[in-house]
Amino acid sequence: MTQPLYQKVIDTIVARIAAGELLPGGMLPSEMQLAAEVGVSQGTARKALMMLEQHGILRREQGRGTFVTARTPESSLFNFFRLREQNGEIVRPELIEEKVTQRPATSEEQALLFDKPAQVYEISRIRSLQGINSTIETSVVPAPLFAGIDNRAPLPSALYILYQQSYGCIVLKADESITATPADAVQAKALNTSEGAPLLQVERLAFDILGRPIERRRSLYRTDRFSYRVTLD
Amino acid sequence: MTQPLYQKVIDTIVARIAAGELLPGGMLPSEMQLAAEVGVSQGTARKALMMLEQHGILRREQGRGTFVTARTPESSLFNFFRLREQNGEIVRPELIEEKVTQRPATSEEQALLFDKPAQVYEISRIRSLQGINSTIETSVVPAPLFAGIDNRAPLPSALYILYQQSYGCIVLKADESITATPADAVQAKALNTSEGAPLLQVERLAFDILGRPIERRRSLYRTDRFSYRVTLD
Repeated sequence: MTQPLYQKVIDTIVARIAAGELLPGGMLPSEMQLAAEVGVSQGTARKALMMLEQHGILRREQGRGTFVTARTPESSLFNFFRLREQNGEIVRPELIEEKVTQRPATSEEQALLFDKPAQVYEISRIRSLQGINSTIETSVVPAPLFAGIDNRAPLPSALYILYQQSYGCIVLKADESITATPADAVQAKALNTSEGAPLLQVERLAFDILGRPIERRRSLYRTDRFSYRVTLD
Repeated sequence: MTQPLYQKVIDTIVARIAAGELLPGGMLPSEMQLAAEVGVSQGTARKALMMLEQHGILRREQGRGTFVTARTPESSLFNFFRLREQNGEIVRPELIEEKVTQRPATSEEQALLFDKPAQVYEISRIRSLQGINSTIETSVVPAPLFAGIDNRAPLPSALYILYQQSYGCIVLKADESITATPADAVQAKALNTSEGAPLLQVERLAFDILGRPIERRRSLYRTDRFSYRVTLD
């Protein structure tokens, strides 16, 4: 796989942020320095900086320099965790059960995920909201990109922060396909509801800053007390 | 209700677009002319133009002027109609049944909708997708803002185009709250499904370009053959 040259610059910067060498609010080297370090032209370095700025990772200030945006784990978590109380208030999900396994990718997963992985990790979790088991979440990620994630269990509540801090994958976009579906026997048991009860099913494909589809996630929600919030514009 | 001065400028421009005096691709008068026509300062006119540009209504070209963006009815419709086939293809909804009535607003509607209307119009519609009744849609709008909409029936498939072309309300943002819910007897009958079947319920509050909440819409979808698509970023 040949990468465009600006991707080398993005990778370098993202790796430094992931490694904690560049902290939120911290200043980046100049375009010229960066270009020299990575071995690309200044124009290529500029293109990378502009892309990172467009994605809200960097902030350029006229005459001052380029800085890492302060993106807190909280905002990153709640951007993608869309369940809210009826009054719109954020609910804090609690992890009840977790299972991480490595297995061969299905042909559908190979077609969807970055670099057609032969192996994937499957991360299955049940979450509770205010004492009620409310979510069954199954994330599937390419094994080559997330080597050893099965040895890190228990994983943090917000997987995207782990992806960012330990694997340099910054999730910035997700396509979702939402349906209402009846609970089967296993799902009903896990969520303390009856078989056939309506569940909200969200099939998500998450893309990182390089536009690579790095995670497929299927979430099932009980929405009798909570609802899924979205803003269109 | 006192409006900020820039709103007068926005109203003037939106009214001209709505009236067809300003066409997509057409050029606007200069900031100075506009300010003189509306009777505000040039800074106020500039602020209005910047807001309209941010919302994608206008496009400013350095050294050339300001132009109306080409926003086709199609794009406007499909921005907010989110149902897709399993393979992601757009489906064209067909109107099966429509009822438009004027009635007093509930206290909840008064609290949610612009200018606490005493009266609202309720637009109830059933739509079919590829021959299958798939959607029950109920839109509620403030009567003062949409005077006489009940005399326009049958309404066009895309209500937001009507709001824009006949009432100068450009819908640009919507907050949605999504749940899975069991069909009651009436809903099951309208959608040719069984009582208790899982339906996707989308409660939407739509805001116009001035940030006014101008429509509350409740949509119920059968999602056994279609799904609701959303992109998060």
